[in-house]
Amino acid sequence: MTDLSTLGPVAEEIRPFWRHIERVHYTPPGLAPRRPLYIGSMTADARIGSLDGRLEEHLKNCLPPNAIKAGGAVVLAEGMGLAEGAQALRDLCMALLDVEAGPRFGEWFDVFNEAGNLCGEVERGLVPLLGTRARGAHLNGLVKGPGGMQLWVGTRSRTKRLDPGLLDHLAAGGVGAGFSPLQTMVKEAGEEAGLPPELARQVRPSAVLHYQLNRPEGLRRDEIHCYDLVLPGDFIPQPVDHEVERFELMPLSEVFDRVRDTDDFKFNVNLVLIDLFIRQGLFSAEGGEALRAALAGMAPGTETKQASGGPS
Amino acid sequence: MTDLSTLGPVAEEIRPFWRHIERVHYTPPGLAPRRPLYIGSMTADARIGSLDGRLEEHLKNCLPPNAIKAGGAVVLAEGMGLAEGAQALRDLCMALLDVEAGPRFGEWFDVFNEAGNLCGEVERGLVPLLGTRARGAHLNGLVKGPGGMQLWVGTRSRTKRLDPGLLDHLAAGGVGAGFSPLQTMVKEAGEEAGLPPELARQVRPSAVLHYQLNRPEGLRRDEIHCYDLVLPGDFIPQPVDHEVERFELMPLSEVFDRVRDTDDFKFNVNLVLIDLFIRQGLFSAEGGEALRAALAGMAPGTETKQASGGPS
Repeated sequence: MTDLSTLGPVAEEIRPFWRHIERVHYTPPGLAPRRPLYIGSMTADARIGSLDGRLEEHLKNCLPPNAIKAGGAVVLAEGMGLAEGAQALRDLCMALLDVEAGPRFGEWFDVFNEAGNLCGEVERGLVPLLGTRARGAHLNGLVKGPGGMQLWVGTRSRTKRLDPGLLDHLAAGGVGAGFSPLQTMVKEAGEEAGLPPELARQVRPSAVLHYQLNRPEGLRRDEIHCYDLVLPGDFIPQPVDHEVERFELMPLSEVFDRVRDTDDFKFNVNLVLIDLFIRQGLFSAEGGEALRAALAGMAPGTETKQASGGPS
Repeated sequence: MTDLSTLGPVAEEIRPFWRHIERVHYTPPGLAPRRPLYIGSMTADARIGSLDGRLEEHLKNCLPPNAIKAGGAVVLAEGMGLAEGAQALRDLCMALLDVEAGPRFGEWFDVFNEAGNLCGEVERGLVPLLGTRARGAHLNGLVKGPGGMQLWVGTRSRTKRLDPGLLDHLAAGGVGAGFSPLQTMVKEAGEEAGLPPELARQVRPSAVLHYQLNRPEGLRRDEIHCYDLVLPGDFIPQPVDHEVERFELMPLSEVFDRVRDTDDFKFNVNLVLIDLFIRQGLFSAEGGEALRAALAGMAPGTETKQASGGPS
């Protein structure tokens, strides 16, 4: 990522937003090294993720002995086809869940290798431990008000496991196995905010953002599909499944100030909002340009490259 | 890239647009293999491009003998710092220009390695031969008309070397060494369309697109910075530098039809317009989603990965 101090006068304008982007690049020092994880062969295209150091004690029991290679990489179903690879990945997940190496959500995410091929599924709770990429969908629920654009903002339930009480989008969620990001968006918008499908299906896919960071739960390598939807003024969202405590309609200028001055929004919501602010013209052209480049700079390269700040 | 036939009913809607994206993935068969090109060390992060097979006859005369490694890779300034690397790259360019290995434009582009570090400059005419990444900037010049959104469309001069007579953006250009994409955009908008700087500086950076394809001139690995600008209705663009024959204001719905049904627009302009159409809601949500994913799928991985359809 560019050093902000090289950006000249525009640095002051964007510094308070830049920190949200910098934060998703952060790798804390002292992490145990991760083992690169492949399916089928030890080539860059066949890589799917990397195993967390916390899994070390389980590897001997949960992996076929020939899967661990000299040099430390792990290769599942070497020389075999996609079906065998998917089965080997499922076997690994089931074995890790059996020994309670990670939490069990009862929800599975699709896994793709670096060549973009679907390779199988990983239990959601194991995703940060296996370092596979996860997909999410976020909805900017907009209303054109008399004083300018407004945004529907949710307050996350105080009982949520992650980030309770923080501000969030009208709807957002992880993309489960077999679903597309759009299907997820329509489903979540119905479940979380009571948005009728016929309205939700008018969303506009506005951007795809990537980030990678280490959190307490492990490595988060996320691909966020962002959507805009301009809602009719008489639509009032309802917290259907109680993941959200309440919704409020906030002028976009106020959202802008909150993102700038506080950490009130969930960490990845800030990224989606910065993309929206750029497109809504809330930055100078230079400021928008620098932030756009920082967001685009998070596009997926190899995991090794992105994690180069880390010890592994 | 996803196989369109797997997308179900939405395939019919997007097929005519999809072909423009597919086209920028195309690698013709039978190309001579390219030598990977590095500066400083033979690591993925230090790679800057790949040498065209047409340069083979010149390599012995234009490279220090120790630059060509067993296996065929070329490493400039091995073990040295950024300044020495930039000088070695300039030396290579000057030697290739001296033997007329490629055309001389008198214009240089910045070169970045895969880690994102500025490594030096390459003469514009050599960029496709050295396979380095080039940056461009494109402007969607929009006008809100009574019947909907309109777009300023230029017709390229019949005397241009590349793509004469094709339809083009209000302004677009390659990013020269030392310039940012935004500075380029403001400069080109003035030079090509007579847009005053104070107006041009209100552009909104809307997307960054990538593609890689082989063209007659060599390997094009482009990073396109896209901008939107809603112009006042009384602004009439002027073809200042005669790169453009004429400008016309076209309803966005007509632009949509032209992109769908013809190849009238320059190949990369179609990509920028597809991004605009998605954001303007001209596709169904499913159609926009699939096209957005295809555009995002062109984000830069390693060159090898992107060119995997090719013989090298």
